[in-house]
Amino acid sequence: MLAQDTVRHPLSQAHGHIVVETNGAGFQDVTRHLANWLTEIGAENGLLTAFIRHTSASLTIQENADPNVQVDLLRSLDQLAPQGPHYVHDTEGPDDMPAHIKSMLTSTSLGIPVVGGSMVLGTWQGLYVIEHRSRPHSREIALHYLGTFFSDAGVQ
Amino acid sequence: MLAQDTVRHPLSQAHGHIVVETNGAGFQDVTRHLANWLTEIGAENGLLTAFIRHTSASLTIQENADPNVQVDLLRSLDQLAPQGPHYVHDTEGPDDMPAHIKSMLTSTSLGIPVVGGSMVLGTWQGLYVIEHRSRPHSREIALHYLGTFFSDAGVQ
Amino acid sequence: MLAQDTVRHPLSQAHGHIVVETNGAGFQDVTRHLANWLTEIGAENGLLTAFIRHTSASLTIQENADPNVQVDLLRSLDQLAPQGPHYVHDTEGPDDMPAHIKSMLTSTSLGIPVVGGSMVLGTWQGLYVIEHRSRPHSREIALHYLGTFFSDAGVQ
Repeated sequence: MLAQDTVRHPLSQAHGHIVVETNGAGFQDVTRHLANWLTEIGAENGLLTAFIRHTSASLTIQENADPNVQVDLLRSLDQLAPQGPHYVHDTEGPDDMPAHIKSMLTSTSLGIPVVGGSMVLGTWQGLYVIEHRSRPHSREIALHYLGTFFSDAGVQ
Repeated sequence: MLAQDTVRHPLSQAHGHIVVETNGAGFQDVTRHLANWLTEIGAENGLLTAFIRHTSASLTIQENADPNVQVDLLRSLDQLAPQGPHYVHDTEGPDDMPAHIKSMLTSTSLGIPVVGGSMVLGTWQGLYVIEHRSRPHSREIALHYLGTFFSDAGVQ
Repeated sequence: MLAQDTVRHPLSQAHGHIVVETNGAGFQDVTRHLANWLTEIGAENGLLTAFIRHTSASLTIQENADPNVQVDLLRSLDQLAPQGPHYVHDTEGPDDMPAHIKSMLTSTSLGIPVVGGSMVLGTWQGLYVIEHRSRPHSREIALHYLGTFFSDAGVQ
Protein backbone atom coordinates (compact mmCIF):
# COMPACT_ATOMS: atom_id res chain seq x y z
CA MET A 1 0.00 0.00 0.00
CA LEU A 2 2.88 2.38 0.69
CA ALA A 3 5.88 3.36 -1.33
CA GLN A 4 8.60 5.76 -0.41
CA ASP A 5 11.45 7.62 -1.97
CA THR A 6 13.36 9.95 0.26
CA VAL A 7 15.97 12.36 -0.97
CA ARG A 8 19.05 13.67 0.80
CA HIS A 9 20.22 16.23 -1.77
CA PRO A 10 20.21 19.84 -0.59
CA LEU A 11 16.94 21.63 -1.26
CA SER A 12 16.63 24.84 -3.20
CA GLN A 13 13.87 26.69 -5.01
CA ALA A 14 12.97 28.63 -8.15
CA HIS A 15 10.28 31.17 -8.94
CA GLY A 16 9.02 31.93 -12.43
CA HIS A 17 5.90 32.57 -14.44
CA ILE A 18 4.34 31.91 -17.80
CA VAL A 19 1.96 34.15 -19.70
CA VAL A 20 -0.83 32.54 -21.69
CA GLU A 21 -2.73 34.36 -24.43
CA THR A 22 -6.25 32.94 -24.39
CA ASN A 23 -8.71 32.92 -27.30
CA GLY A 24 -11.82 33.71 -25.25
CA ALA A 25 -13.80 31.20 -23.23
CA GLY A 26 -12.20 27.77 -23.39
CA PHE A 27 -9.49 25.42 -22.23
CA GLN A 28 -5.83 26.01 -22.99
CA ASP A 29 -3.35 23.21 -22.33
CA VAL A 30 -0.30 24.49 -20.44
CA THR A 31 1.15 21.09 -19.43
CA ARG A 32 4.05 21.39 -21.88
CA HIS A 33 4.86 24.96 -20.75
CA LEU A 34 5.13 23.82 -17.14
CA ALA A 35 7.19 20.76 -18.11
CA ASN A 36 9.52 22.99 -20.15
CA TRP A 37 10.00 25.32 -17.20
CA LEU A 38 10.93 22.41 -14.95
CA THR A 39 13.47 21.25 -17.53
CA GLU A 40 14.85 24.75 -17.97
CA ILE A 41 15.50 25.23 -14.25
CA GLY A 42 16.86 21.69 -13.87
CA ALA A 43 14.23 20.51 -11.37
CA GLU A 44 14.77 16.95 -10.07
CA ASN A 45 12.55 15.91 -7.11
CA GLY A 46 10.23 18.33 -5.32
CA LEU A 47 6.97 20.23 -5.43
CA LEU A 48 5.67 22.49 -8.20
CA THR A 49 3.02 25.10 -7.37
CA ALA A 50 1.09 26.82 -10.17
CA PHE A 51 -0.92 29.91 -9.18
CA ILE A 52 -3.08 31.91 -11.60
CA ARG A 53 -3.14 35.62 -10.83
CA HIS A 54 -6.71 36.25 -11.97
CA THR A 55 -10.29 35.83 -10.73
CA SER A 56 -12.05 35.31 -14.07
CA ALA A 57 -9.75 32.56 -15.35
CA SER A 58 -8.67 29.49 -13.40
CA LEU A 59 -6.70 26.25 -13.41
CA THR A 60 -7.81 22.64 -13.62
CA ILE A 61 -6.30 19.22 -14.19
CA GLN A 62 -8.45 17.30 -16.63
CA GLU A 63 -8.54 14.59 -19.27
CA ASN A 64 -6.22 15.26 -22.19
CA ALA A 65 -7.43 12.50 -24.57
CA ASP A 66 -10.83 13.44 -26.02
CA PRO A 67 -11.26 17.19 -26.78
CA ASN A 68 -15.03 16.70 -26.42
CA VAL A 69 -14.52 16.45 -22.68
CA GLN A 70 -13.59 20.13 -22.68
CA VAL A 71 -16.74 21.00 -24.64
CA ASP A 72 -18.88 19.30 -21.99
CA LEU A 73 -16.91 20.83 -19.10
CA LEU A 74 -17.48 24.32 -20.52
CA ARG A 75 -21.20 23.68 -21.00
CA SER A 76 -21.42 22.36 -17.47
CA LEU A 77 -19.76 25.50 -16.10
CA ASP A 78 -22.21 27.60 -18.15
CA GLN A 79 -25.11 25.76 -16.54
CA LEU A 80 -23.68 26.08 -13.04
CA ALA A 81 -23.02 29.81 -13.52
CA PRO A 82 -25.36 31.04 -16.26
CA GLN A 83 -25.34 34.55 -17.67
CA GLY A 84 -28.48 36.53 -16.86
CA PRO A 85 -29.96 39.71 -15.40
CA HIS A 86 -29.97 38.34 -11.85
CA TYR A 87 -26.49 39.51 -10.84
CA VAL A 88 -25.87 42.63 -8.75
CA HIS A 89 -22.36 42.97 -10.20
CA ASP A 90 -23.01 43.72 -13.88
CA THR A 91 -20.78 46.65 -14.74
CA GLU A 92 -18.08 44.60 -16.44
CA GLY A 93 -20.30 42.77 -18.92
CA PRO A 94 -22.67 39.77 -18.74
CA ASP A 95 -19.78 37.25 -18.82
CA ASP A 96 -17.89 38.73 -15.85
CA MET A 97 -19.89 37.55 -12.84
CA PRO A 98 -20.29 34.02 -14.24
CA ALA A 99 -16.51 34.05 -14.73
CA HIS A 100 -15.92 34.80 -11.04
CA ILE A 101 -18.28 32.00 -10.00
CA LYS A 102 -16.56 29.53 -12.34
CA SER A 103 -13.18 30.54 -10.92
CA MET A 104 -14.44 29.96 -7.38
CA LEU A 105 -15.69 26.47 -8.33
CA THR A 106 -12.42 25.41 -9.99
CA SER A 107 -8.78 26.06 -8.91
CA THR A 108 -6.62 29.12 -8.41
CA SER A 109 -3.60 27.14 -7.21
CA LEU A 110 -2.38 23.58 -7.76
CA GLY A 111 0.45 21.70 -6.06
CA ILE A 112 2.03 18.91 -8.08
CA PRO A 113 4.83 16.61 -6.88
CA VAL A 114 7.81 16.36 -9.23
CA VAL A 115 9.84 13.12 -9.51
CA GLY A 116 12.88 12.69 -11.73
CA GLY A 117 12.25 16.07 -13.35
CA SER A 118 8.62 15.33 -14.31
CA MET A 119 5.26 16.16 -12.74
CA VAL A 120 3.60 13.01 -11.41
CA LEU A 121 0.58 13.48 -13.68
CA GLY A 122 -1.48 10.42 -14.53
CA THR A 123 -1.52 9.17 -18.11
CA TRP A 124 -4.68 11.08 -18.98
CA GLN A 125 -4.03 14.24 -16.99
CA GLY A 126 -3.26 17.62 -18.51
CA LEU A 127 -3.05 20.98 -16.78
CA TYR A 128 -5.29 23.64 -18.25
CA VAL A 129 -6.00 27.33 -17.97
CA ILE A 130 -9.76 27.85 -18.25
CA GLU A 131 -10.56 31.26 -19.71
CA HIS A 132 -14.01 32.24 -18.43
CA ARG A 133 -14.32 35.60 -20.21
CA SER A 134 -15.70 35.80 -23.77
CA ARG A 135 -12.82 37.84 -25.17
CA PRO A 136 -9.13 36.85 -25.39
CA HIS A 137 -6.99 37.81 -22.39
CA SER A 138 -3.35 37.64 -21.26
CA ARG A 139 -3.24 35.34 -18.23
CA GLU A 140 -0.24 35.02 -15.94
CA ILE A 141 0.57 31.87 -13.97
CA ALA A 142 3.09 32.28 -11.16
CA LEU A 143 5.28 29.20 -10.73
CA HIS A 144 7.23 27.99 -7.72
CA TYR A 145 9.41 24.92 -7.45
CA LEU A 146 10.94 23.67 -4.23
CA GLY A 147 13.13 20.58 -4.12
CA THR A 148 16.36 19.23 -5.53
CA PHE A 149 17.99 20.18 -8.82
CA PHE A 150 19.86 17.88 -11.23
CA SER A 151 22.83 20.21 -11.08
CA ASP A 152 23.82 23.67 -10.03
CA ALA A 153 23.32 24.71 -13.65
CA GLY A 154 19.67 25.30 -12.87
CA VAL A 155 20.40 27.41 -9.81
CA GLN A 156 21.66 30.90 -10.59
CA MET B 1 7.12 32.94 -22.39
CA LEU B 2 9.25 31.91 -19.42
CA ALA B 3 10.76 33.87 -16.60
CA GLN B 4 12.88 32.61 -13.78
CA ASP B 5 14.25 33.71 -10.48
CA THR B 6 16.21 31.16 -8.53
CA VAL B 7 17.32 31.61 -4.97
CA ARG B 8 20.38 30.20 -3.23
CA HIS B 9 19.68 31.27 0.36
CA PRO B 10 19.23 28.48 2.90
CA LEU B 11 15.62 27.35 3.28
CA SER B 12 13.69 27.28 6.52
CA GLN B 13 10.05 27.19 7.53
CA ALA B 14 7.47 28.62 9.91
CA HIS B 15 4.12 27.38 11.16
CA GLY B 16 1.40 29.60 12.54
CA HIS B 17 -2.31 30.23 12.51
CA ILE B 18 -4.88 32.99 12.52
CA VAL B 19 -8.33 32.90 14.08
CA VAL B 20 -11.15 34.70 12.30
CA GLU B 21 -14.42 35.62 14.00
CA THR B 22 -17.09 35.48 11.32
CA ASN B 23 -20.43 37.32 11.34
CA GLY B 24 -22.49 34.48 9.91
CA ALA B 25 -22.74 33.59 6.24
CA GLY B 26 -20.49 35.82 4.15
CA PHE B 27 -17.02 36.66 2.94
CA GLN B 28 -14.29 37.86 5.27
CA ASP B 29 -11.12 39.31 3.77
CA VAL B 30 -8.02 37.82 5.43
CA THR B 31 -5.44 39.01 2.88
CA ARG B 32 -3.98 41.57 5.27
CA HIS B 33 -3.77 39.05 8.13
CA LEU B 34 -1.74 36.67 5.97
CA ALA B 35 0.46 39.49 4.69
CA ASN B 36 1.06 40.62 8.28
CA TRP B 37 2.07 37.11 9.31
CA LEU B 38 4.59 36.92 6.45
CA THR B 39 6.05 40.26 7.58
CA GLU B 40 6.14 39.18 11.20
CA ILE B 41 8.11 36.00 10.50
CA GLY B 42 10.39 37.79 8.01
CA ALA B 43 9.43 35.67 4.97
CA GLU B 44 11.38 36.51 1.81
CA ASN B 45 10.93 34.04 -1.11
CA GLY B 46 9.00 30.79 -0.78
CA LEU B 47 5.60 29.17 -0.58
CA LEU B 48 2.73 30.03 1.76
CA THR B 49 0.05 27.42 2.47
CA ALA B 50 -3.24 28.42 4.11
CA PHE B 51 -5.42 25.58 5.42
CA ILE B 52 -8.82 26.08 7.04
CA ARG B 53 -9.55 23.58 9.80
CA HIS B 54 -13.31 23.36 9.21
CA THR B 55 -15.81 21.70 6.88
CA SER B 56 -18.57 24.31 6.95
CA ALA B 57 -16.35 27.30 6.14
CA SER B 58 -13.80 27.47 3.34
CA LEU B 59 -11.22 29.57 1.52
CA THR B 60 -11.29 31.29 -1.85
CA ILE B 61 -9.29 33.82 -3.81
CA GLN B 62 -11.64 36.29 -5.41
CA GLU B 63 -12.08 39.82 -6.70
CA ASN B 64 -11.43 42.47 -4.08
CA ALA B 65 -12.71 45.54 -5.95
CA ASP B 66 -16.52 45.48 -6.09
CA PRO B 67 -18.22 44.15 -2.91
CA ASN B 68 -21.22 43.22 -5.06
CA VAL B 69 -19.18 40.32 -6.45
CA GLN B 70 -19.36 38.72 -3.02
CA VAL B 71 -23.16 39.17 -2.91
CA ASP B 72 -23.47 37.31 -6.20
CA LEU B 73 -20.99 34.60 -5.20
CA LEU B 74 -23.00 33.90 -2.02
CA ARG B 75 -26.27 33.75 -3.98
CA SER B 76 -24.67 31.43 -6.46
CA LEU B 77 -23.51 29.10 -3.67
CA ASP B 78 -27.05 29.19 -2.22
CA GLN B 79 -28.43 28.07 -5.58
CA LEU B 80 -25.84 25.33 -6.01
CA ALA B 81 -26.45 24.03 -2.47
CA PRO B 82 -29.95 25.14 -1.43
CA GLN B 83 -31.44 24.56 2.00
CA GLY B 84 -34.37 22.16 2.01
CA PRO B 85 -35.94 19.01 3.44
CA HIS B 86 -34.14 16.72 0.96
CA TYR B 87 -30.99 16.12 3.05
CA VAL B 88 -30.44 12.97 5.09
CA HIS B 89 -28.05 14.83 7.41
CA ASP B 90 -30.32 17.39 9.11
CA THR B 91 -29.50 17.15 12.81
CA GLU B 92 -27.27 20.25 12.91
CA GLY B 93 -29.74 22.68 11.39
CA PRO B 94 -30.93 23.48 7.84
CA ASP B 95 -27.78 25.48 7.03
CA ASP B 96 -25.31 22.71 7.94
CA MET B 97 -25.52 20.31 5.01
CA PRO B 98 -25.50 23.14 2.43
CA ALA B 99 -22.41 24.45 4.26
CA HIS B 100 -20.58 21.13 3.74
CA ILE B 101 -21.47 21.12 0.04
CA LYS B 102 -20.26 24.70 -0.39
CA SER B 103 -17.00 23.81 1.37
CA MET B 104 -16.50 20.86 -0.99
CA LEU B 105 -17.04 23.10 -4.03
CA THR B 106 -14.58 25.77 -2.88
CA SER B 107 -11.14 25.41 -1.21
CA THR B 108 -9.87 23.98 2.06
CA SER B 109 -6.20 24.68 1.26
CA LEU B 110 -4.41 27.21 -0.95
CA GLY B 111 -0.75 27.40 -1.92
CA ILE B 112 0.55 30.86 -2.78
CA PRO B 113 4.10 31.67 -3.94
CA VAL B 114 5.81 34.46 -1.99
CA VAL B 115 8.33 36.78 -3.68
CA GLY B 116 10.20 39.57 -1.89
CA GLY B 117 8.07 39.06 1.21
CA SER B 118 4.72 39.39 -0.60
CA MET B 119 2.21 36.88 -1.93
CA VAL B 120 2.14 36.95 -5.74
CA LEU B 121 -1.54 37.89 -5.78
CA GLY B 122 -2.87 39.62 -8.88
CA THR B 123 -4.02 43.24 -8.59
CA TRP B 124 -7.67 42.28 -8.03
CA GLN B 125 -7.13 39.17 -5.92
CA GLY B 126 -7.98 38.94 -2.24
CA LEU B 127 -7.97 35.86 -0.01
CA TYR B 128 -11.26 35.25 1.79
CA VAL B 129 -12.75 32.99 4.41
CA ILE B 130 -16.28 32.08 3.35
CA GLU B 131 -18.49 31.39 6.34
CA HIS B 132 -21.24 29.02 5.20
CA ARG B 133 -23.14 28.74 8.51
CA SER B 134 -25.83 31.29 9.41
CA ARG B 135 -24.43 32.11 12.85
CA PRO B 136 -21.05 33.66 13.71
CA HIS B 137 -18.20 31.19 14.27
CA SER B 138 -14.54 31.20 15.27
CA ARG B 139 -12.60 29.84 12.30
CA GLU B 140 -8.95 28.82 12.44
CA ILE B 141 -6.61 28.94 9.46
CA ALA B 142 -3.37 27.00 9.83
CA LEU B 143 -0.44 28.68 8.06
CA HIS B 144 2.81 27.24 6.79
CA TYR B 145 5.64 29.07 5.08
CA LEU B 146 8.63 27.38 3.53
CA GLY B 147 11.41 29.34 1.85
CA THR B 148 14.01 31.96 2.66
CA PHE B 149 13.84 34.61 5.37
CA PHE B 150 15.09 38.18 5.18
CA SER B 151 17.16 37.60 8.32
CA ASP B 152 17.52 35.26 11.24
CA ALA B 153 15.32 37.69 13.20
CA GLY B 154 12.29 35.87 11.83
CA VAL B 155 13.60 32.44 12.74
CA GLN B 156 13.41 31.67 16.41
CA MET C 1 -4.53 36.89 16.38
CA LEU C 2 -1.20 35.47 15.31
CA ALA C 3 0.78 32.50 16.51
CA GLN C 4 4.12 31.29 15.28
CA ASP C 5 6.34 28.30 15.53
CA THR C 6 9.50 28.43 13.51
CA VAL C 7 11.82 25.50 13.03
CA ARG C 8 15.58 25.48 12.53
CA HIS C 9 16.12 21.80 11.78
CA PRO C 10 17.48 20.98 8.34
CA LEU C 11 14.78 20.39 5.73
CA SER C 12 14.45 17.27 3.65
CA GLN C 13 11.71 15.61 1.64
CA ALA C 14 10.05 12.30 0.83
CA HIS C 15 7.97 11.09 -2.09
CA GLY C 16 5.55 8.17 -1.95
CA HIS C 17 2.14 7.02 -3.01
CA ILE C 18 -0.84 5.03 -1.83
CA VAL C 19 -3.19 2.96 -3.96
CA VAL C 20 -6.86 2.87 -3.02
CA GLU C 21 -9.26 0.21 -4.29
CA THR C 22 -12.65 1.90 -4.55
CA ASN C 23 -16.05 0.17 -4.46
CA GLY C 24 -17.67 2.28 -7.16
CA ALA C 25 -19.15 5.74 -6.62
CA GLY C 26 -18.65 6.89 -3.04
CA PHE C 27 -16.34 8.30 -0.41
CA GLN C 28 -13.32 6.41 0.86
CA ASP C 29 -11.55 7.68 3.97
CA VAL C 30 -7.76 7.79 3.45
CA THR C 31 -6.87 9.92 6.49
CA ARG C 32 -5.30 6.98 8.31
CA HIS C 33 -3.28 5.91 5.26
CA LEU C 34 -1.77 9.37 4.99
CA ALA C 35 -1.12 9.55 8.74
CA ASN C 36 0.58 6.15 8.58
CA TRP C 37 2.80 7.27 5.73
CA LEU C 38 3.88 10.35 7.71
CA THR C 39 4.73 8.10 10.67
CA GLU C 40 6.57 5.64 8.47
CA ILE C 41 8.85 8.29 6.95
CA GLY C 42 9.33 10.00 10.33
CA ALA C 43 7.85 13.35 9.31
CA GLU C 44 8.02 16.05 12.01
CA ASN C 45 7.11 19.59 10.86
CA GLY C 46 6.44 20.49 7.25
CA LEU C 47 3.98 20.33 4.38
CA LEU C 48 2.20 17.27 3.00
CA THR C 49 0.86 17.35 -0.57
CA ALA C 50 -1.61 14.71 -1.75
CA PHE C 51 -2.22 14.52 -5.51
CA ILE C 52 -4.66 12.11 -7.15
CA ARG C 53 -3.49 10.90 -10.57
CA HIS C 54 -6.95 10.60 -12.12
CA THR C 55 -9.66 12.78 -13.70
CA SER C 56 -12.73 10.76 -12.74
CA ALA C 57 -11.93 10.47 -9.03
CA SER C 58 -10.89 13.32 -6.76
CA LEU C 59 -9.95 14.41 -3.25
CA THR C 60 -11.85 16.34 -0.62
CA ILE C 61 -11.57 17.17 3.06
CA GLN C 62 -14.95 16.70 4.69
CA GLU C 63 -16.81 15.90 7.88
CA ASN C 64 -15.87 12.55 9.38
CA ALA C 65 -18.57 12.29 12.06
CA ASP C 66 -21.94 11.52 10.44
CA PRO C 67 -21.77 9.15 7.43
CA ASN C 68 -25.03 10.71 6.18
CA VAL C 69 -23.04 13.78 5.20
CA GLN C 70 -21.36 11.68 2.50
CA VAL C 71 -24.75 10.48 1.23
CA ASP C 72 -25.88 14.07 0.78
CA LEU C 73 -22.57 15.16 -0.76
CA LEU C 74 -22.84 12.40 -3.38
CA ARG C 75 -26.43 13.34 -4.18
CA SER C 76 -25.44 16.95 -4.49
CA LEU C 77 -22.66 16.06 -6.93
CA ASP C 78 -25.17 13.98 -8.92
CA GLN C 79 -27.46 17.00 -9.17
CA LEU C 80 -24.65 19.35 -10.17
CA ALA C 81 -23.40 16.90 -12.83
CA PRO C 82 -26.32 14.65 -13.79
CA GLN C 83 -26.05 11.74 -16.17
CA GLY C 84 -27.97 12.25 -19.42
CA PRO C 85 -27.90 12.26 -23.22
CA HIS C 86 -26.73 15.88 -23.40
CA TYR C 87 -22.97 15.20 -23.34
CA VAL C 88 -20.81 15.19 -26.47
CA HIS C 89 -18.27 12.89 -24.77
CA ASP C 90 -20.25 9.67 -24.29
CA THR C 91 -17.98 6.89 -25.51
CA GLU C 92 -16.83 5.79 -22.05
CA GLY C 93 -20.26 5.27 -20.51
CA PRO C 94 -22.95 7.55 -19.03
CA ASP C 95 -21.05 7.97 -15.74
CA ASP C 96 -17.78 9.17 -17.31
CA MET C 97 -18.52 12.76 -18.27
CA PRO C 98 -20.31 13.49 -14.97
CA ALA C 99 -17.20 12.04 -13.25
CA HIS C 100 -14.94 14.56 -15.03
CA ILE C 101 -17.22 17.45 -14.03
CA LYS C 102 -17.30 16.29 -10.41
CA SER C 103 -13.50 16.05 -10.40
CA MET C 104 -13.24 19.60 -11.74
CA LEU C 105 -15.56 20.89 -8.98
CA THR C 106 -13.66 19.17 -6.15
CA SER C 107 -9.87 18.78 -5.62
CA THR C 108 -7.04 17.06 -7.48
CA SER C 109 -4.36 18.25 -5.05
CA LEU C 110 -4.38 19.25 -1.37
CA GLY C 111 -1.63 20.83 0.72
CA ILE C 112 -1.78 20.12 4.44
CA PRO C 113 0.63 21.52 7.06
CA VAL C 114 2.17 18.91 9.35
CA VAL C 115 3.06 19.75 12.98
CA GLY C 116 4.66 17.31 15.41
CA GLY C 117 4.22 14.47 12.94
CA SER C 118 0.47 15.02 12.43
CA MET C 119 -1.59 16.79 9.80
CA VAL C 120 -3.22 19.91 11.25
CA LEU C 121 -6.70 18.62 10.47
CA GLY C 122 -9.60 20.01 12.47
CA THR C 123 -11.45 17.68 14.85
CA TRP C 124 -14.14 16.85 12.30
CA GLN C 125 -11.98 16.76 9.19
CA GLY C 126 -11.16 13.60 7.25
CA LEU C 127 -9.43 13.29 3.88
CA TYR C 128 -11.40 11.34 1.31
CA VAL C 129 -11.01 9.93 -2.17
CA ILE C 130 -14.29 10.44 -4.03
CA GLU C 131 -14.81 7.76 -6.66
CA HIS C 132 -17.04 9.24 -9.35
CA ARG C 133 -17.29 6.18 -11.63
CA SER C 134 -19.96 3.52 -11.02
CA ARG C 135 -17.55 0.57 -11.03
CA PRO C 136 -14.65 -0.10 -8.63
CA HIS C 137 -11.28 1.32 -9.66
CA SER C 138 -7.68 1.36 -8.47
CA ARG C 139 -6.83 4.96 -7.63
CA GLU C 140 -3.31 6.21 -6.97
CA ILE C 141 -2.50 9.18 -4.76
CA ALA C 142 0.99 10.63 -5.11
CA LEU C 143 2.38 11.94 -1.82
CA HIS C 144 5.07 14.49 -1.15
CA TYR C 145 6.35 15.67 2.20
CA LEU C 146 8.77 18.52 2.68
CA GLY C 147 10.01 19.59 6.10
CA THR C 148 11.90 18.23 9.07
CA PHE C 149 12.14 14.60 10.17
CA PHE C 150 12.19 13.29 13.75
CA SER C 151 15.41 11.46 13.01
CA ASP C 152 17.57 10.33 10.15
CA ALA C 153 15.83 6.94 10.47
CA GLY C 154 13.12 8.28 8.20
CA VAL C 155 15.55 9.57 5.61
CA GLN C 156 17.18 6.91 3.50
